[in-house]
Amino acid sequence: MNIKIGFGVDVHQLVEGRDLVVGGVNVPSEIGALGHSDADVLLHAICDAMLGALNLRDIGFHFSDQDPKYKNIDSQILLRDTFKLIKEKGFHLGNLDATVILEKPKLNPHIPQMQETIARILETEIDNVSIKATTHEKVDSFGTQKALKAYVVCLLTR
Amino acid sequence: MNIKIGFGVDVHQLVEGRDLVVGGVNVPSEIGALGHSDADVLLHAICDAMLGALNLRDIGFHFSDQDPKYKNIDSQILLRDTFKLIKEKGFHLGNLDATVILEKPKLNPHIPQMQETIARILETEIDNVSIKATTHEKVDSFGTQKALKAYVVCLLTR
Amino acid sequence: MNIKIGFGVDVHQLVEGRDLVVGGVNVPSEIGALGHSDADVLLHAICDAMLGALNLRDIGFHFSDQDPKYKNIDSQILLRDTFKLIKEKGFHLGNLDATVILEKPKLNPHIPQMQETIARILETEIDNVSIKATTHEKVDSFGTQKALKAYVVCLLTR
Repeated sequence: MNIKIGFGVDVHQLVEGRDLVVGGVNVPSEIGALGHSDADVLLHAICDAMLGALNLRDIGFHFSDQDPKYKNIDSQILLRDTFKLIKEKGFHLGNLDATVILEKPKLNPHIPQMQETIARILETEIDNVSIKATTHEKVDSFGTQKALKAYVVCLLTR
Repeated sequence: MNIKIGFGVDVHQLVEGRDLVVGGVNVPSEIGALGHSDADVLLHAICDAMLGALNLRDIGFHFSDQDPKYKNIDSQILLRDTFKLIKEKGFHLGNLDATVILEKPKLNPHIPQMQETIARILETEIDNVSIKATTHEKVDSFGTQKALKAYVVCLLTR
Repeated sequence: MNIKIGFGVDVHQLVEGRDLVVGGVNVPSEIGALGHSDADVLLHAICDAMLGALNLRDIGFHFSDQDPKYKNIDSQILLRDTFKLIKEKGFHLGNLDATVILEKPKLNPHIPQMQETIARILETEIDNVSIKATTHEKVDSFGTQKALKAYVVCLLTR
């Protein structure tokens, strides 16, 4: 078939002393996301959704969190390299729809910038890159600022 | 592309003194869903999935939970208004598949009524509106009747 | 429409004295998944995604966890019977993308075997059966080896 579906989900803890990078944007926050790279939960979930659509393993397989090369790396580089793999298979993005779960700060003011960044890397129109932000209604770790999560679904087409 | 994918997820706390409205059905329950509107977790996730598919922001953008106009509102109105936006863009529903996570009560007896309600609003056949209910196996807040969640995926077509 | 989308999510507790069966593979582990059947979180989520795509209810409807017939049953049988229902409707699998959330042990070494098993049952190529494994970053029950979860999205075509 010429249409493939992919799904990605990513989780990072929120801790002091780290930046909060989401969708390539450094969001002002007193706590940030813990991880080997810049811990960009949204870009990681996008990478996993696109890799999964074409059975190309996952982000950890291509960019190991044990590899010093990826220490604190800008995840835009990982997204760009992921998209190269997609193009090599003859596919491009149909559209993606992302949801970021974070109690605070509000991500909405930053979403247009995230969309521009991601659409440019994925060589597509902004309308094909939907990003929604919502809270977890104070429930469990995602609702009490101990962690954040992103879900992404995508369609790739040949 | 003429096919777009969308994904919505919604969470509400369960508390005493509120109704439990799911998929437009008032489900008999000792505890209900907390929220500004009627807190219908399933209809909200459907709205978000359809809005996301066409990059139309999210339910909070169109129907703010700070706006007294939406206090305790029937979410069927929000779904109807969301579908208007979809139709204005020239799209209609291909199909949607929803999963509601709730420890109890059992939602299964109410699913046919939910499907009828939603299919009527979305001007589609019941077979295009799948609703599944499952528990969270006693795990975390969703497994101990402190909260409920809905996931929805959808395809929209031109 | 000739393309249908489905989504499945499944959760099982991890306990001592049970096997850990994921994607049809018995994964060496000191703790296993609790459930009426073999509690294969991945195969259950695949069944639910495929059933949901065609509005065929859910795995609990077809294979009740109250029925002694399904006690400790190999979930490959449930997947095979689910796929029969899909074929009877004239559909087959486009592709599926699965994500298993488990803190440890590592599932990656077992993924090729899971893919072979699932692709054989679903009469498709391995490239249409993507399986990704990830941790929950020590967060909540899924991050502390008390439970595991699987998400699956799929496209079915006529």
